[in-house]
Amino acid sequence: MTEYPMSPLMGQMMDQPLLISSIFAFAARHYGDTEIVSRRVEGDIHRYTYRDCERRARKLAHALAGLGVKTGERVATLAWNGYRHMELYYGVSGSGAVLHTINPRLHPEQIAYIVDHAEDQFLFFDLTFLPAIELMARQCKTVKGYVALCGREHMPANTGIPMLMCYEELVDAAPPDFAWPQFDERSAASLCYTSGTTGNPKGALYSHRSTVLHAYASAMPNALNVSSSDVVLPVVPMFHVNAWGLPYSVPLSGAKMVYPGAALDGKSLYELFEAEGVSFSAGVPTVWLGLVNHVLQNDLRFSTFRRTVIGGSACPPALMDTLIDRLRVQVVHAWGMTEMSPLGTACTLGYRHAALPAEEQRAVLRKQGHAIYGVDMKIVDDDGGELPWDGTTYGHLLVKGPWVVSGYYRSDEGDVLQDGWFPTGDVATIDGDGYLHITDRSKDVIKSGGEWIGSIDLENIAMAHPAVLQAACIGVPHPRWSERPLLVVVRRPGMELAREDLLAFYEGKVAKWWVPDDVVFADSLPVGGTGKIQKNRLRDLYHEHRLPTA
Amino acid sequence: MTEYPMSPLMGQMMDQPLLISSIFAFAARHYGDTEIVSRRVEGDIHRYTYRDCERRARKLAHALAGLGVKTGERVATLAWNGYRHMELYYGVSGSGAVLHTINPRLHPEQIAYIVDHAEDQFLFFDLTFLPAIELMARQCKTVKGYVALCGREHMPANTGIPMLMCYEELVDAAPPDFAWPQFDERSAASLCYTSGTTGNPKGALYSHRSTVLHAYASAMPNALNVSSSDVVLPVVPMFHVNAWGLPYSVPLSGAKMVYPGAALDGKSLYELFEAEGVSFSAGVPTVWLGLVNHVLQNDLRFSTFRRTVIGGSACPPALMDTLIDRLRVQVVHAWGMTEMSPLGTACTLGYRHAALPAEEQRAVLRKQGHAIYGVDMKIVDDDGGELPWDGTTYGHLLVKGPWVVSGYYRSDEGDVLQDGWFPTGDVATIDGDGYLHITDRSKDVIKSGGEWIGSIDLENIAMAHPAVLQAACIGVPHPRWSERPLLVVVRRPGMELAREDLLAFYEGKVAKWWVPDDVVFADSLPVGGTGKIQKNRLRDLYHEHRLPTA
Repeated sequence: MTEYPMSPLMGQMMDQPLLISSIFAFAARHYGDTEIVSRRVEGDIHRYTYRDCERRARKLAHALAGLGVKTGERVATLAWNGYRHMELYYGVSGSGAVLHTINPRLHPEQIAYIVDHAEDQFLFFDLTFLPAIELMARQCKTVKGYVALCGREHMPANTGIPMLMCYEELVDAAPPDFAWPQFDERSAASLCYTSGTTGNPKGALYSHRSTVLHAYASAMPNALNVSSSDVVLPVVPMFHVNAWGLPYSVPLSGAKMVYPGAALDGKSLYELFEAEGVSFSAGVPTVWLGLVNHVLQNDLRFSTFRRTVIGGSACPPALMDTLIDRLRVQVVHAWGMTEMSPLGTACTLGYRHAALPAEEQRAVLRKQGHAIYGVDMKIVDDDGGELPWDGTTYGHLLVKGPWVVSGYYRSDEGDVLQDGWFPTGDVATIDGDGYLHITDRSKDVIKSGGEWIGSIDLENIAMAHPAVLQAACIGVPHPRWSERPLLVVVRRPGMELAREDLLAFYEGKVAKWWVPDDVVFADSLPVGGTGKIQKNRLRDLYHEHRLPTA
Repeated sequence: MTEYPMSPLMGQMMDQPLLISSIFAFAARHYGDTEIVSRRVEGDIHRYTYRDCERRARKLAHALAGLGVKTGERVATLAWNGYRHMELYYGVSGSGAVLHTINPRLHPEQIAYIVDHAEDQFLFFDLTFLPAIELMARQCKTVKGYVALCGREHMPANTGIPMLMCYEELVDAAPPDFAWPQFDERSAASLCYTSGTTGNPKGALYSHRSTVLHAYASAMPNALNVSSSDVVLPVVPMFHVNAWGLPYSVPLSGAKMVYPGAALDGKSLYELFEAEGVSFSAGVPTVWLGLVNHVLQNDLRFSTFRRTVIGGSACPPALMDTLIDRLRVQVVHAWGMTEMSPLGTACTLGYRHAALPAEEQRAVLRKQGHAIYGVDMKIVDDDGGELPWDGTTYGHLLVKGPWVVSGYYRSDEGDVLQDGWFPTGDVATIDGDGYLHITDRSKDVIKSGGEWIGSIDLENIAMAHPAVLQAACIGVPHPRWSERPLLVVVRRPGMELAREDLLAFYEGKVAKWWVPDDVVFADSLPVGGTGKIQKNRLRDLYHEHRLPTA
């Protein structure tokens, strides 16, 4: 770690480390009666308070010590969004161990790889994932025990899982007098693996300092804007980059927390939104599609839901329009990544936008927005030269900041930074007002005759066609232009759509040379562990596709 | 400084120090075109952008180096809120020196004491303060030069001030290529002296870390709630605890900044609010009284002003009601002190208050509010025993947090903390929801027969009487009860008010034994350097006052 020179005159302020335990101790003390409501895997609704949660997190920390978990050792979770998972967030990190949240949507062999690589000592799991645990338990050499997140009455029998324990018994048996230890704030707090489309997953190892700073920054009005007047339902999973930091930013803001468990379909979410008075939520576009469809098809309306943050991948403009114009839900488009804890930018309007016509405001809101203070960003060409912020020049996006990784956990990749900046793998423009617009992944950008074509813009246009359910645009080899865009489309059930009609739909919406050279129709698109379309698989599939222009 | 143990596993995040220069570099880069508008001492309106401001701050940093100012050395300002003062905020602290903002309302001998105690190397001043500088320049031994904040055309002649320089010449002559140095974030950044009512002023020495953390925390929605959609006018002076941190929290939020200069009367403020579209402001109650009176007397309304933070002393309920009910300005009651950078609490409603009747909501808003995450607080009895949070038990208020002082600059007082907590000198209750209510200063509380009577509550009731302009309540000696309350009142010009009528006004508003024993009428009340009523002087004045109950 870098040591910076000290001034001959140091400040005379209290020297307190930024620790995750301090967030929860604060919530328990200052917002002790504020509720945490969870839809459990068991099926019922569970409710208690920040005070209760912190008390159980301290009992859990005690139990972990009893199991022999030491400072810096990894404890894994395979769990949905719920109060027990939150107790693990605080109990594990707060006690000085490292919380390793595993994405259960990964393939079992990837999970086994991750558990081995992280050298997890214990694994806590929701009953949903019992079959996966049964499959992999004998492969995971470092794991000393498995803990089922349930009470004795729900414990599975005859599982064949070695050292299977019951969470509620573990917590119940522990005394509540655990005092959160104080240690260097740069100590590791949690670990999250990226689900790379190629190669093995790589671990981002967050520190207490990075987590607390990210929590402050992400709660600010320009970002997630979380306050004690909010009731927050994180749809984004706690196994996906710490649910975008909401398990930290919500308690420090004193907002009520509502966890949806495993029921993420439109109907279940809508009912929970209404029953608990949810005002704010956050998640990836696909979840909102499901919720919005449920609401529209059943002619419902939201009573309290007023604001959502959409990230993970670009929000289709049609979805944004429906949320804002028909359902009166404010949409904050955000961008980040596992390596950024994850928040990099969020899109809110500035004081100068207030006087703009609604159409122009909407055009701003479609961008990924402004860097949050703490994050710096730049766009560069293939040689690393910085490019202008003019809203049209495309470049590779690089970032830095105190909640950006400096490397990967136990990686032999060498320095992953470029001159101290982290290469995001995204391609973007930045306009004169500082608004970022992600146009593509560096590996997905279509290089046509030396110029770049952004695949996401082309997909968004296709998605706006009423007969299109899903669309992906990839570059395929072209003898003259090196690459040209090919559109792969899934039609809406029961709807007709001809190749020529879809291509005509691009007229006037993009430059002529951006219009895809061809369209193929498919029954479905390949989707990876985090719900994103796997374009590398599409490229393999259509590598030999002969374009009519070739 | 405390060193905390490191974990065997440290996080792998970028190691960047939290430095004040990073706020401004961020604003210049990401909100480069956002405006800073200042009413100058010269009389005109000056406007430029964050980009311009940062460029000049770098030139200033270069100039300071040229003057021989070294890391950790103090540079003083005696200046109003304006863009040049902001350049000093960043240029001085950013370069590693320490910005010492002096309150010009202090007595000249206090100012000379402070300058000597701080060992200020240079003093930058607005022309308003030329007479004060002329008086004290020869007394201040450590000061190597004085810099007038103006251009050559406004430089005063024949002042007798040694080493008098012109700010604009200094900045103009410096090259703009200064690179902000990187150093330990706990290094001293700025210095602010408390204007203690007794004894010499004491210096709070803020660090870069405490300032940046305070900026994050104070920008959050539960606190000042600053966003890029705001146009912010800090009425609270930049010489008063860094204008409550707004010169930091506003740029990092990308809001437009409007500085009022020396013109703080109702008419000047109103005109600037309207001309610049101010949406948010912050200041002490007396300033709002002037502004509100101007607006009401001239039958005006605010076009854009929507929210204000009121602190420094308790907001009179009548003022709060007028702002909210008649002028539709949201009032955030806040509490803090010089030793807390200054923000400790802010009062906003939680999700559970939404369903309450307006009257009950207002009762919550009259409190000083909730601790901001980072600050912890407790109330204790005379022996240091912690008291319950029930909304009625009074106790001495103690605080801690990373932006609370651990001691005073060059002080021989010894440990000012109690068991690691800073004693605020305030008396308060905290209710079950965590809302703080300051009821008095520890030294102003009236101790009647072993029970405490809060002087502020009694003053607020008197202030609500239509014939009362100002009121102060003090304890005076009583043979049986040790102390009993005496009310000192200034009547509104041309209005009649009898002692008996005012005492009858308390009926049903407080417990019988709280009703003051007597009322005396005065032409004015003594006021100190920060605009607060000097109760110690009142106590001296009325020490011999014979209560009718004695």
